[in-house]
Amino acid sequence: MARVYNFSAGPSALPESVLKIAQQEMLEYGDSGMSVMEMSHRSKVYESIINACEEKLRKVMNIPDNYKVLFLQGGASSQFAMIPLNLLNKTNKADIVLTGVWAKKAYKEASKYGEMNVIASSEDKTFSYIPELDESKFNKDADYFYICSNNTIYGTRFKNFPETGNVPLIADMSSEILSRKIDVSKFGVIFAGAQKNMGPAGLTVCIIREDLIGNAMDITPTMFDYKTHSENGSMFNTPPTYAIYICKLMLDWLDEMGGIDAMEKINEEKAATLYNFLDNSKMFSATVEGDSRSIMNIPFVTGNEELDKKFIAEATKAGFVNLKGHRSVGGMRASIYNAMPLEGVKKLVEFMAEFEKNN
Amino acid sequence: MARVYNFSAGPSALPESVLKIAQQEMLEYGDSGMSVMEMSHRSKVYESIINACEEKLRKVMNIPDNYKVLFLQGGASSQFAMIPLNLLNKTNKADIVLTGVWAKKAYKEASKYGEMNVIASSEDKTFSYIPELDESKFNKDADYFYICSNNTIYGTRFKNFPETGNVPLIADMSSEILSRKIDVSKFGVIFAGAQKNMGPAGLTVCIIREDLIGNAMDITPTMFDYKTHSENGSMFNTPPTYAIYICKLMLDWLDEMGGIDAMEKINEEKAATLYNFLDNSKMFSATVEGDSRSIMNIPFVTGNEELDKKFIAEATKAGFVNLKGHRSVGGMRASIYNAMPLEGVKKLVEFMAEFEKNN
Repeated sequence: MARVYNFSAGPSALPESVLKIAQQEMLEYGDSGMSVMEMSHRSKVYESIINACEEKLRKVMNIPDNYKVLFLQGGASSQFAMIPLNLLNKTNKADIVLTGVWAKKAYKEASKYGEMNVIASSEDKTFSYIPELDESKFNKDADYFYICSNNTIYGTRFKNFPETGNVPLIADMSSEILSRKIDVSKFGVIFAGAQKNMGPAGLTVCIIREDLIGNAMDITPTMFDYKTHSENGSMFNTPPTYAIYICKLMLDWLDEMGGIDAMEKINEEKAATLYNFLDNSKMFSATVEGDSRSIMNIPFVTGNEELDKKFIAEATKAGFVNLKGHRSVGGMRASIYNAMPLEGVKKLVEFMAEFEKNN
Repeated sequence: MARVYNFSAGPSALPESVLKIAQQEMLEYGDSGMSVMEMSHRSKVYESIINACEEKLRKVMNIPDNYKVLFLQGGASSQFAMIPLNLLNKTNKADIVLTGVWAKKAYKEASKYGEMNVIASSEDKTFSYIPELDESKFNKDADYFYICSNNTIYGTRFKNFPETGNVPLIADMSSEILSRKIDVSKFGVIFAGAQKNMGPAGLTVCIIREDLIGNAMDITPTMFDYKTHSENGSMFNTPPTYAIYICKLMLDWLDEMGGIDAMEKINEEKAATLYNFLDNSKMFSATVEGDSRSIMNIPFVTGNEELDKKFIAEATKAGFVNLKGHRSVGGMRASIYNAMPLEGVKKLVEFMAEFEKNN
């Protein structure tokens, strides 16, 4: 069959143009005589790839010079331990907002290593909103303040970020990095699993303010100490070389599309297209309201499980795949990351309108 | 230029036929309408890939049913922490043999979590041999006994493995897994970074006896607990999906080549071809003797640094690349993993003979 419109929450669709470059270079990268997969990570040709990847990321995100970019492994789940092991080093306390399963996992893991204070939670309504934050509850002596900025499962995001003063703000941006303009200097650490907006699974990108590196707990495994990777340019051991190469191609593509400013406009238009339809439909409705709405992950329901199933089945047949919602929310979810073109969302909406007419 | 003969120590050469399948399937795997890189790791189509990968590995290595196969991230360096964190749970003591930098790193990391007893070391001669082991020194109450079975940098390997009785034998087989027949039942844990004989960097395969899982120290990060991955079929979080797919292609290729029995014969012939030449050359000589010799990594020298440099430069020009030895050994090193055909070694030897004649 032809390539489908893939609304998977992650790993997710990649731009066809990126895949075509990877395909063309699979047996031989440039005049190296070998695939990127076969290159020594310490070779000059591979160094040029990883360096270009970092430079392009610094350019598109406008990352200040006092931040390190680390190419790691182990996903956000590894960061859930790395953050407390490295950052709980003054008062052994940190603040956290619970906006979903991933924030809760980060909370549980960090609680093994220190005292975590829950500033707010939206668990009362299946994490379907971003809670208001009462700044008077923030602990001024916390070692950090943790959020998951976009919640893949529930389709919520922090439109604005908490003002944490001198307390470093840590954000899991796995499902929204590169999708909107972010002022990196407001954060202590930004991390993201690559498998949504940056490339294939198996690469975790970590952007960390330099002064937060170097004070890990003694029990920290060497590979979980940011210093290990920072001091060795992400080459303490063999990094996930091919995933970094694909990430570089993704960043080149984003840059050619006009960078994050341009991409944010497209993403806003994609999200508005789907939300507008949902808000005016008599059959479908969005599960998230107002400022809590993510522009990356959009869950929706018909209110009738049988109808949901029928819709998913017919959509799949028509080439709109991976629309089934997470089991904890039910219904449907369209993940419309950077690589999903506006055309894909428009066609999905047309298909939904047609389905509504016929059912 | 055409594809070269790549003697890189890792990441390393892959069979051209494997790369061609990956190339062909880059934009669309089967009738899925998408690249393997774009697939949800929880989709049926991806499950069929990871399951086939595990089944093929179990087949070619003849892995007993009471062993789990885990697809992890973070390389051998992460295992250096995972092994002690998970296995130092009775006497908090373990035995180790120091045969190179990687064994020493494993020793240093494990020493953070318990008492490590060095049974033998070959550091006195730059790790150029595998030391004799005095079994009377083995600690009968050790929680495990650790070796690095093949030493990439120095070109040594354990021809035979220590008999450790009831003490679980743990082996880092990163640079020799799948190269020779191994009786898995003799080991507690076998692990390997994939980037030599199994596929691309970013995947670590861990074969672990079931009874060794489930007693990690309390301080163990969730992602460093074997139980986390064992209980979730390596899907606690998103695994390195594309690297696992390439690993599956590598295993299919190995199986088609006749499995490990056939591959071991080819590897023996490749190694003999190069060692025979080295042992008879007046210019080149191997740095490792007798039973300590690896059949995967073969370091050699001319005894003259300028001549080494000239050789490496001319070899590179002739399409024999990545022959420069590790800085701690100097000279040259030919890594001749499974994917290096016998023809590549024969041509290298012809080139070396010609070089010797002319210099």
